[in-house]
This record gives sequence, structure tokens and C-alpha cells, in this order.
Amino acid sequence: MRQLVLASFVITTFASLAHPQCRPSPTVRNAIEAANKAFVASFNSGSAAAVAAMYTSDAQLLPPNSPMIGNHQGIQSFWQNLITAGIKVVRLETKVVEACGDTAYEVGGYEFTIPTAVGGTVTDHGKYVVIWKKQGRRWKLAQDIWNTNAPAGG
Amino acid sequence: MRQLVLASFVITTFASLAHPQCRPSPTVRNAIEAANKAFVASFNSGSAAAVAAMYTSDAQLLPPNSPMIGNHQGIQSFWQNLITAGIKVVRLETKVVEACGDTAYEVGGYEFTIPTAVGGTVTDHGKYVVIWKKQGRRWKLAQDIWNTNAPAGG
Repeated sequence: MRQLVLASFVITTFASLAHPQCRPSPTVRNAIEAANKAFVASFNSGSAAAVAAMYTSDAQLLPPNSPMIGNHQGIQSFWQNLITAGIKVVRLETKVVEACGDTAYEVGGYEFTIPTAVGGTVTDHGKYVVIWKKQGRRWKLAQDIWNTNAPAGG
Repeated sequence: MRQLVLASFVITTFASLAHPQCRPSPTVRNAIEAANKAFVASFNSGSAAAVAAMYTSDAQLLPPNSPMIGNHQGIQSFWQNLITAGIKVVRLETKVVEACGDTAYEVGGYEFTIPTAVGGTVTDHGKYVVIWKKQGRRWKLAQDIWNTNAPAGG
């Protein structure tokens, strides 16, 4: 019986190794949604340093209308510029999360408000993909790309 | 000795399962680079159907200046519109690939040419993230997002 259990375990384990998978994980999705809430809170409170601290040390930020930003100071400066411009994040909405060990990818939608010259705001809706890496107990952003839904020149 | 080998195998296997990982894989990178070459060839030869066939049946296309496109016909129409507009893909350049079983993520750079009204072309440089899924022997695009490096309104 012990041999049978062991054999069964070995076969199951082999099958898992032969086809390791990225799969939906409620636990990881919850952790990422919590991280996104922290991101929004830090951004809206004006702390670019706290936002930048949510990225891995080798993260790449891939913003629209900018070359890739591949260093921590550059990532902090990028977010600082948006904070200084008065942009606020209304919403990050997770739509898809698949977890694969210490890596996960997320697809979501965002909503920003941007101040206008005449004292109002315009809202920008768009979408993003983030590659997350778990470091210690924290999920951190390793690759971060997004774009707007608004028509070009809009 | 056999017990020792088996125990060693079981421990190694357990360790792998406890920390399944996404890691660089030359094999997967080569397959994705080959798929990108096929994508460029199909696009530049004007076959939106062949391009769309490279996406999984539940793929999501996340283009700039457009809502998310979540169906096969919509993906084909999107690429058909760019082909009809005379856009050509000069280059897809893979920069990062990490593979996790049947899933991989890729970060890369693109170069398109866009015809101008006066008969020339302008070149658009940008970056992208693709989530790939292996289906049978083929790697297919499951999530595809990109944006331009050019300044806004440029």
C-alpha cells in the first residue's frame, strides 16, 4: 500500500512537472488587488517614493509616449511628474490574474483624472498588463505597460 | 541506494513544486522569435486571417486608442484595418522571455512604418508585452498590449 501511495505521488508529481501551469489563483488575485489599492493610495497621497518602492529593483516601466524606463530612480521620477501634474488614479480594476509560482500576470483597466487648463478634469480610461514577482511576502511590479482607450489625438 | 535515489528525487521534485518558477528558456525564446517572424511575414503580405490565427481563441488584444478587443473576428478586423492603411511591420525585437510551462511572457520593441498623406512614411517605435500560451506544438498570443515611444500628439 505504501508503495502504491508513493508510486501514485511520484506519477502525479511528474505529471505536474511535465506541465507546470499558470492558473487563476484567488489568493494571488486578492494579494494583487490589495497591492493595487496600496498603489492608488500612495499615488493619490503624492508619495512617488512609496509607489516606486512597489516595483522590483530590476523593474521595467513601459509608459505610453515614453521610451522604456529601466531604473528605480527613473520610475520614481515618472510617477512624481504625474503627481505634480495633478493626475489622480480613480481606479485600477483587475480583470485577469494567472499565477505561476513566484510570478503572476495581471490584465486590468484603469481610470485616471487629468486636470485641464480651465480648472476641470478629463478622465482617461485605459488598460494595462503587469508582470508581478513575489519577493519575500510581497508581490511587486516587474513589468508595467498600459495604454489609453481614447482615440488618437483625443 | 535505490531508496536514496528515490528520496533525492522526491525531495528535488517537492522543492520544484513548492517554488514553481517562470525562468528564461532559450527553447521558448527561439519559438517565440520564430512566431514573431511569422507574424511579421503574414502581416506584411496582407493576410489578416493568418495573423489572427496566431492568437488563442480567447485572446485579448489591447491596442492603444481602442477598447480591449476580445473576439477573434475583432482581432482580424483590427489587423486588417492596419494592413489596409498601408502600415508595415519593420521589426519585432524580443528583449525578455520567461517561460512557465505552457505560458510565457515576452517584453519587446516594435518598429512600424505608416504611410503619410504626401506619399512618404513615418516610423513608429514602441514596446509591447505579450502573454503567450502553448497549444499543441504552437505558441499563440493570448494577451497582446503595446504603446508608442513617440511624445503625445507627435
